[in-house]
Amino acid sequence: MNRDVANRRLRAGIVGGGQGSFIGAVHRIAAELDGQAEIVAGAMSTDPQRAATSAQAWFLKRSYNSFQEMAEKEAQLQDGIDFVIIAIPNYMHFPVAKVFLEHGIHVVSDKPMSFTLEEAQEEVALVERGDLIFALTHNYTGYPTVRHARELVRHGALGAIRKVLVEYVQDWLMESVEKSGNKQAVWRTDPTKSGISGCVGDIGTHAENLLEFITGLKITSLCADLTTFVEGRALEDDANMLLRLENGGKGLLTCSQIAAGEENNLTIRVYGSKAGLEWHQMEPNTLIFKEPGKPQQILRTGLPYMSDEAKVATRLPAGHPEGFLEAFANLYKMIIADIRRVEEGNKPMGGYPTVYDGLRGMQFVTKAVESSRNGSTWVNM
Amino acid sequence: MNRDVANRRLRAGIVGGGQGSFIGAVHRIAAELDGQAEIVAGAMSTDPQRAATSAQAWFLKRSYNSFQEMAEKEAQLQDGIDFVIIAIPNYMHFPVAKVFLEHGIHVVSDKPMSFTLEEAQEEVALVERGDLIFALTHNYTGYPTVRHARELVRHGALGAIRKVLVEYVQDWLMESVEKSGNKQAVWRTDPTKSGISGCVGDIGTHAENLLEFITGLKITSLCADLTTFVEGRALEDDANMLLRLENGGKGLLTCSQIAAGEENNLTIRVYGSKAGLEWHQMEPNTLIFKEPGKPQQILRTGLPYMSDEAKVATRLPAGHPEGFLEAFANLYKMIIADIRRVEEGNKPMGGYPTVYDGLRGMQFVTKAVESSRNGSTWVNM
Amino acid sequence: MNRDVANRRLRAGIVGGGQGSFIGAVHRIAAELDGQAEIVAGAMSTDPQRAATSAQAWFLKRSYNSFQEMAEKEAQLQDGIDFVIIAIPNYMHFPVAKVFLEHGIHVVSDKPMSFTLEEAQEEVALVERGDLIFALTHNYTGYPTVRHARELVRHGALGAIRKVLVEYVQDWLMESVEKSGNKQAVWRTDPTKSGISGCVGDIGTHAENLLEFITGLKITSLCADLTTFVEGRALEDDANMLLRLENGGKGLLTCSQIAAGEENNLTIRVYGSKAGLEWHQMEPNTLIFKEPGKPQQILRTGLPYMSDEAKVATRLPAGHPEGFLEAFANLYKMIIADIRRVEEGNKPMGGYPTVYDGLRGMQFVTKAVESSRNGSTWVNM
Amino acid sequence: MNRDVANRRLRAGIVGGGQGSFIGAVHRIAAELDGQAEIVAGAMSTDPQRAATSAQAWFLKRSYNSFQEMAEKEAQLQDGIDFVIIAIPNYMHFPVAKVFLEHGIHVVSDKPMSFTLEEAQEEVALVERGDLIFALTHNYTGYPTVRHARELVRHGALGAIRKVLVEYVQDWLMESVEKSGNKQAVWRTDPTKSGISGCVGDIGTHAENLLEFITGLKITSLCADLTTFVEGRALEDDANMLLRLENGGKGLLTCSQIAAGEENNLTIRVYGSKAGLEWHQMEPNTLIFKEPGKPQQILRTGLPYMSDEAKVATRLPAGHPEGFLEAFANLYKMIIADIRRVEEGNKPMGGYPTVYDGLRGMQFVTKAVESSRNGSTWVNM
Repeated sequence: MNRDVANRRLRAGIVGGGQGSFIGAVHRIAAELDGQAEIVAGAMSTDPQRAATSAQAWFLKRSYNSFQEMAEKEAQLQDGIDFVIIAIPNYMHFPVAKVFLEHGIHVVSDKPMSFTLEEAQEEVALVERGDLIFALTHNYTGYPTVRHARELVRHGALGAIRKVLVEYVQDWLMESVEKSGNKQAVWRTDPTKSGISGCVGDIGTHAENLLEFITGLKITSLCADLTTFVEGRALEDDANMLLRLENGGKGLLTCSQIAAGEENNLTIRVYGSKAGLEWHQMEPNTLIFKEPGKPQQILRTGLPYMSDEAKVATRLPAGHPEGFLEAFANLYKMIIADIRRVEEGNKPMGGYPTVYDGLRGMQFVTKAVESSRNGSTWVNM
Repeated sequence: MNRDVANRRLRAGIVGGGQGSFIGAVHRIAAELDGQAEIVAGAMSTDPQRAATSAQAWFLKRSYNSFQEMAEKEAQLQDGIDFVIIAIPNYMHFPVAKVFLEHGIHVVSDKPMSFTLEEAQEEVALVERGDLIFALTHNYTGYPTVRHARELVRHGALGAIRKVLVEYVQDWLMESVEKSGNKQAVWRTDPTKSGISGCVGDIGTHAENLLEFITGLKITSLCADLTTFVEGRALEDDANMLLRLENGGKGLLTCSQIAAGEENNLTIRVYGSKAGLEWHQMEPNTLIFKEPGKPQQILRTGLPYMSDEAKVATRLPAGHPEGFLEAFANLYKMIIADIRRVEEGNKPMGGYPTVYDGLRGMQFVTKAVESSRNGSTWVNM
Repeated sequence: MNRDVANRRLRAGIVGGGQGSFIGAVHRIAAELDGQAEIVAGAMSTDPQRAATSAQAWFLKRSYNSFQEMAEKEAQLQDGIDFVIIAIPNYMHFPVAKVFLEHGIHVVSDKPMSFTLEEAQEEVALVERGDLIFALTHNYTGYPTVRHARELVRHGALGAIRKVLVEYVQDWLMESVEKSGNKQAVWRTDPTKSGISGCVGDIGTHAENLLEFITGLKITSLCADLTTFVEGRALEDDANMLLRLENGGKGLLTCSQIAAGEENNLTIRVYGSKAGLEWHQMEPNTLIFKEPGKPQQILRTGLPYMSDEAKVATRLPAGHPEGFLEAFANLYKMIIADIRRVEEGNKPMGGYPTVYDGLRGMQFVTKAVESSRNGSTWVNM
Repeated sequence: MNRDVANRRLRAGIVGGGQGSFIGAVHRIAAELDGQAEIVAGAMSTDPQRAATSAQAWFLKRSYNSFQEMAEKEAQLQDGIDFVIIAIPNYMHFPVAKVFLEHGIHVVSDKPMSFTLEEAQEEVALVERGDLIFALTHNYTGYPTVRHARELVRHGALGAIRKVLVEYVQDWLMESVEKSGNKQAVWRTDPTKSGISGCVGDIGTHAENLLEFITGLKITSLCADLTTFVEGRALEDDANMLLRLENGGKGLLTCSQIAAGEENNLTIRVYGSKAGLEWHQMEPNTLIFKEPGKPQQILRTGLPYMSDEAKVATRLPAGHPEGFLEAFANLYKMIIADIRRVEEGNKPMGGYPTVYDGLRGMQFVTKAVESSRNGSTWVNM
């Protein structure tokens, strides 16, 4: 590579994230939080007026009316963007990523990685052929407690993993809000925008990713029961699955967007032959470690006994809560450091979800839908 | 019936429950707690010495060396027992119940009701032919909060039930403690004492009973994945299941005795089209009620807004914790009142688990084992 | 002593506790819970009709119209009561105890021990002159977790105690319910029945007792601010106090019966030079142990690491919640064992609150009121 | 004023916050989080080398060796800073603020506002004479839940406030870490840097500020017991206080830095004549609302029932935890908006702590120390 990235914040562009978007602002805050990057350009909406207003609200230097235009022009500027952030509905993830990769610009993409499994496979090939960083924001892996959980498993504190219970339940789609104009709901419940799956693709993949991230184990087969509870909806809004893991362990995964009274409850429990652990995204600074016959231990972000993996992902002293944005920013911290490495001719170090996690997620969605369509029978991943 | 039960505590006998038994003392405390019954006779062990010592420790008036002898003699005494408590390993539940029923003595039995599904069916027929009370101690239905949960569902506060998550996880069998003489473990892991199932029969049935009790819905089919994690063990110590309910609702049930760090974690969450609820046996005085878009409500035993069903099952003012024994005693309270009713020529009022719950439990166990043996495929209940 | 107490349940009488009483049923259940005693006689009300009906509801063998009559007659019966339970308003605690002690009958009394400090001093002298057991039901010391907390302090796990925060807050008197006939409220807010103090005497003494029980330290001085928030009430319904302990430690105590939304929240936190602990009466099976720089430990009733002091006070396996009644019964267990010891000519072993705790409580109440009346200045205990 | 602040991020400078500082990075993240400001200049250390390195690490455009130099030069630059952030030990807060105010630069200062009460009074006069924004980072008032709590009180949901319990307890000074080089501890325990008080000034003021912010009531008198538990320490590390409020309400305040096992536990409970509320800084997205006789309500950041005051302080959907940095950023959001208003000739709208809160805090510290020195007697505020 040939960008001079020393002594400055990296420059980023964003596709999507215009006014009304929730995830756009999340990306901006997370990318800029550690003062290592700044968003300077955007193709924030396909509506030119909205694109301009959105860019102005963020004080962006350059606003474009299409992502193609942004890719082409930025690639030629002396002070063009170093990386692009993709914050648009699923069906556009791959085409946008492809264009920027082809113009030599690093990519940070929302999940799922693509619209179809085939696209995901193509994307893997594309990334493997080049030297560019491709990162996927499975942001929950950014929490210090989640990273510590993985360390505990890695170092054998749990023994052999026997059982995993993972769930991601919400209630925001329990009525047909897509019919009353909720923008977030409209595209997520539309197969032409979202893909073959509703809640499995949207949040089930986070649960799957978290399970494999913490345990280091692959799901080898699954039996899935997908349900659409809200009348007139084209995609499932609830799913239950039996899982089998590569080491003989067993699991349960449930995800739902019709679970009345649940906000954003992503919870994982892992039970091994020696100990267990438990983590709740809604109380993210706490990790519960459970050894049989001993007192439960409440592990907390910021305390000295946490692993180095957790410490580098922590900004504040214990008892000063860090949340969703800080965890998201932890991914950006690693991604930006890797972009600097690559631009300076060094090897990337990773630590954040990549194109392979993206492929894995698309396989998971594909197999879950296949299982359910076949009468909820077992399928191999 | 013809016993004169007015102006006195009822008289009970117990089969099993000798020294070393956990559940024996539970039955004694629960049966006597409200001052409406007293245990006066026992066949507390098949070992005569242990039977005598156990009976003496409880100041029992009459100790027997066999349950047959107790049934025969007590049936003829002027002040013989009104009901018998069965607190022995599973394989003897039915034969003992049968003898006492045949001698005209009411029965309170531990669950599961029998060793096999056939016995359960025979027991239903036996009870239906007579006028005796037969009660099964699915004790978790005795908690005021559980009874209030059922009321909420009954009165439509949750709307149509869409999703149920129920779990019962423990860790006390995570090592092969049956080999080091743990008496509780020895018979529970022995198919000749326990039956075709390990943890599903032992605790999974509580989860199934709780689900059907609170929702008022039958499980119509299930897909179960049973696992034996501890080497050398003959019965499963872990199970995951997908459930389908008669109204189209879906469910997940997991039970385990190898879940590291879990004590006695029976938890149920029910999600309906209008609201959800959540209950944890280990914090039994709390019931969480969740309406979308409204603050979660923490309902507590003893407060004025609780339903009458909960209030009659509550002995103390709010904030004075009631626990496992009080819930167990709530079943006895209803059972004893029904025995009084029946002896006085009136109709029983029920409210506690009966022979039909026992049959249901045995069907559940049978079907779960069948599903798992068939490669974890769907079976109808 | 000369009663033959072998091979039988002890016989108890009760003064008070008639229909409508909350604490009467608590005493009956707690005294009988372990099958070591049975209530056989009562002077349950000063209203003869209510006394009779109450006694009949409990199937008592003998009902009296006055406590004097009961003391005299029971003392002469072959199968008279071994001990008496005093469950009446404060102003009668001492006179009743005195009569039974003078008739050679052991006493279990509600707290506070007396109406005035002078009576308390007289009662100490009376008990010291005889060989009878006098026990005071500061029942919160009966919880296994509380007993374990005391063991932790005793064995130095906390180091030198520096700071104690103890609170007992309720809301049931936040309106003037005494004017609408709430029987519990009427006598508690009446200085002629309750004494010089309202909430300090009623619940503040539990907090004081718990503090001294767990820490083993005496309060040496206090500065108290007592307030009557509900108009027209004669006694305080809220109190805040600064405390100083004999070892140089400092403390805060607050008690209130007007703390909106609080049920029966008795909480204590103790901080030492090495570690801290925390206990909440409303989640009584949990004790939190906190060492700086280490994970918090969640200690739970019924687990193997608990001290023997906790284990003997535990009836169920871990995860089977025990509550208020079981803790209350733990005091009775020790008291009854001591009555047996004394009757068999042996020394009592104690372990439950005695006349000295009662005296201490009356000193605390007296000093708190004195401090507050003097403009909330410091007074020595 | 005359700066053109339209269409750009505001420019900030920072005094202090060099490498090793915790609060410096907090200010940078919080000030920049919403993309409305950027730190461009700094006098980050009195050590020139450290100042330069720190500025470089943040990619600052201009680094100074003294705050005086920064004030003078920035005031004359065309693109000079709009406001300064003061992030240095207490004894320098006032002198630095004074210089920048005199150079026409807005000020955001750490608390406490000054070293002495006299300085605080002088600072009030200084700010009142000008048109500059002076903001004090009592950051805990920035949480949406805290702002909603204030709204609940304001709108009468609690009725008349009767009782407040507020505490701020930590354990990080429970050993004499100041002797082993802990930089944060060294100046905080040094009266020449910190002032007349240790933990009262450092964290007690946050508790006092939170109490007055939420209740809208002034503390009128207090009785304080300050203690130094760690040997050789010059300032108190623990304090207990009785409080009286202007409306007749009563309170307790405790703060400590030797409370073993506590991280950063700032908790407030407010009890009124109609309802109560409870908030814990370590679970900041939750506010508990308690009405007597009704279910407790768990109010959560991001849900539709929250007040507008809470909503404008919320960036994410419910269940996506926001923490300490976001709350801190909420103050900056309001401060920056007010600087824009003032520069555009409009009136500031406030909403964040100002010079009057700073004065109040210094009075509180002064009176607490006075009370304790006088034998823990009552003093008026």
